[in-house]
Amino acid sequence: MGVMIIREMVGTSSESWSDAAKTAVERASRTVRNIREVEVVKSTAKVADGRIVEYQVQLKIHFEYEA
Amino acid sequence: MGVMIIREMVGTSSESWSDAAKTAVERASRTVRNIREVEVVKSTAKVADGRIVEYQVQLKIHFEYEA
Amino acid sequence: MGVMIIREMVGTSSESWSDAAKTAVERASRTVRNIREVEVVKSTAKVADGRIVEYQVQLKIHFEYEA
Amino acid sequence: MGVMIIREMVGTSSESWSDAAKTAVERASRTVRNIREVEVVKSTAKVADGRIVEYQVQLKIHFEYEA
Amino acid sequence: MGVMIIREMVGTSSESWSDAAKTAVERASRTVRNIREVEVVKSTAKVADGRIVEYQVQLKIHFEYEA
Amino acid sequence: MGVMIIREMVGTSSESWSDAAKTAVERASRTVRNIREVEVVKSTAKVADGRIVEYQVQLKIHFEYEA
Amino acid sequence: MGVMIIREMVGTSSESWSDAAKTAVERASRTVRNIREVEVVKSTAKVADGRIVEYQVQLKIHFEYEA
Amino acid sequence: MGVMIIREMVGTSSESWSDAAKTAVERASRTVRNIREVEVVKSTAKVADGRIVEYQVQLKIHFEYEA
Amino acid sequence: MGVMIIREMVGTSSESWSDAAKTAVERASRTVRNIREVEVVKSTAKVADGRIVEYQVQLKIHFEYEA
Amino acid sequence: MGVMIIREMVGTSSESWSDAAKTAVERASRTVRNIREVEVVKSTAKVADGRIVEYQVQLKIHFEYEA
Amino acid sequence: MGVMIIREMVGTSSESWSDAAKTAVERASRTVRNIREVEVVKSTAKVADGRIVEYQVQLKIHFEYEA
Amino acid sequence: MGVMIIREMVGTSSESWSDAAKTAVERASRTVRNIREVEVVKSTAKVADGRIVEYQVQLKIHFEYEA
Repeated sequence: MGVMIIREMVGTSSESWSDAAKTAVERASRTVRNIREVEVVKSTAKVADGRIVEYQVQLKIHFEYEA
Repeated sequence: MGVMIIREMVGTSSESWSDAAKTAVERASRTVRNIREVEVVKSTAKVADGRIVEYQVQLKIHFEYEA
Repeated sequence: MGVMIIREMVGTSSESWSDAAKTAVERASRTVRNIREVEVVKSTAKVADGRIVEYQVQLKIHFEYEA
Repeated sequence: MGVMIIREMVGTSSESWSDAAKTAVERASRTVRNIREVEVVKSTAKVADGRIVEYQVQLKIHFEYEA
Repeated sequence: MGVMIIREMVGTSSESWSDAAKTAVERASRTVRNIREVEVVKSTAKVADGRIVEYQVQLKIHFEYEA
Repeated sequence: MGVMIIREMVGTSSESWSDAAKTAVERASRTVRNIREVEVVKSTAKVADGRIVEYQVQLKIHFEYEA
Repeated sequence: MGVMIIREMVGTSSESWSDAAKTAVERASRTVRNIREVEVVKSTAKVADGRIVEYQVQLKIHFEYEA
Repeated sequence: MGVMIIREMVGTSSESWSDAAKTAVERASRTVRNIREVEVVKSTAKVADGRIVEYQVQLKIHFEYEA
Repeated sequence: MGVMIIREMVGTSSESWSDAAKTAVERASRTVRNIREVEVVKSTAKVADGRIVEYQVQLKIHFEYEA
Repeated sequence: MGVMIIREMVGTSSESWSDAAKTAVERASRTVRNIREVEVVKSTAKVADGRIVEYQVQLKIHFEYEA
Repeated sequence: MGVMIIREMVGTSSESWSDAAKTAVERASRTVRNIREVEVVKSTAKVADGRIVEYQVQLKIHFEYEA
Repeated sequence: MGVMIIREMVGTSSESWSDAAKTAVERASRTVRNIREVEVVKSTAKVADGRIVEYQVQLKIHFEYEA
């Protein structure tokens, strides 16, 4: 196997933290190929008018580097 | 901007950790106004008869203080 | 109360982290009785073809020991 | 179950860390009802004239909120 | 000595993190007496137009409780 | 020396955290031989009627494996 | 909102850690637009001839990604 | 995929930490099948007569559970 | 106030962790004056014949430096 | 000095963790100049047929940025 | 290069955390030569009469050992 | 047993982290007797011209104090 690169990003969703991660991976896949794994660094949420309006998940994205 | 106060609490749900956070925020909003953000401190679950009966999420609630 | 034993395991689901924990607890219940609580150690996900194919949650399972 | 609130405080004792926690809980119970659990955040001690004069334990106090 | 209570808050300043802590303590002193110590939990900053516009410091405020 | 195995468990006592560890080790010794060392992972306590009723200590138990 | 990207860097200053962060943000802004927030990972300093010659702050830079 | 079980153990070697992990995995493989991954928890060493006599590595061993 | 120096040490006792800290402070006071505070880094215990024979507490000792 | 950039990556080797880091640095040097330092974030290993087949080391790579 | 020794200490200042570190380094330089680097362990402050009277920074001081 | 003292230092080697620890222990043994154990705090490496030139390991050295 080659070398894996790790990038950190934040995904968001109005539904759940699992969905926020899903969104982040799909977004990252437009510019980075060969994503293999993600790990959660931190989970937060934005609140407005007394309810959660956005789940946020900070992720480390592992992808395989192709020379 | 003024000063942000942080309170810690535990929300619960029979559905998911995301739902437990939603419940906690709605409950906290009855007594505290201007909640802006929450961050997850710890995620646990209660188990009975071999299945999860309650998802629990320990949260830091950030709200804006009004003098 | 007696002594609580803690075992660590990883549950998986194609749906969400909450569901991955649910699956792990049901699987563990086949061989261990009296599970009382689980705590999340780490949340990750496997990715293939640009999307999450498996949510994974590393859990500490607390169960009561019966002599 | 309702929502659990968490408050942080420091208890002290000239005897031991276990006793310092006991003192903190009894003190907190005068103003907060329904305390269910405490968790240790940090253990320290004050020293004077070459001996420990005060054990200090920083605790998170979990109590059930009654509307 | 009595029991110390700990509250968490976020102070802000356009100058520095040290100044943000100073502001937070002065603000907290309007409603809480007998603050003895603060400890830094996290340091962040807000950025706009390519420069820091607000230093933010998340603090644990320790104050002595008077019955 | 051979290989050391580590198991995690929770001991309890109505007296102190030191006593809770003692109880856990004596309990574990009924089924595991050659325990050499324990390390504290987390210290908590259960509270009822405004006082601590059970000190709990989460321990890693190190024991030598005999083939 | 879109996806936030996080990059890590080290800023330096002969004056203070607050100033080191300021410098890092201004430097990063030359190549990355839409920086929203920074968080401190680690604070160190280089010493020569018995005095601090350079404050260093390791930062996570959060910026908004524009497709 | 099924459920992964995690066990913790300490491996030793007179050569290096990498070798200590190798030894631990080979030892564990005598009683547990399907080990997939190990992660280092802590690295220590025993010293006698002014030199290292044993490298020790505390590992989490992940293995696939077969019903 | 002057500069505080911090040294790390391990105290032991056959009774409890609180007693192990007491012993460590008294021992340290023979060679270091003006100890002001200690903080617990790690709590462990040695086990023999199925029971704890020595409580061990790893401490940071803070003492005031006198030029 | 200028600004240091930090990238995270995973290096692998069939020999040791030290060798895995060496490989990662040599690989990274093909695309990034002026690497000054690396720090280990996490050490793991892949296992097959009861033995370690690949040491993996997750690294933060610090390199100097040239405008 | 030789071996680096690390000592821990607390510096204080009425101005800022950066200044507290500066003071600590200058004080340490009177008895230790060849200090190369410091890293912040913890930042706190003493408060009196509702305002910060002393910034405190706990530092690890790295210095080169000369045989 | 007496009291154990802990000192922190950094060892270096051009070969590996295990060798860097070996070097540090041998160096420390010239001035400190009765070293019993070391624990790794942090592992880093210096890089020049695109390859690792020095492995560095930050260690806590535990030695027995003789009055």
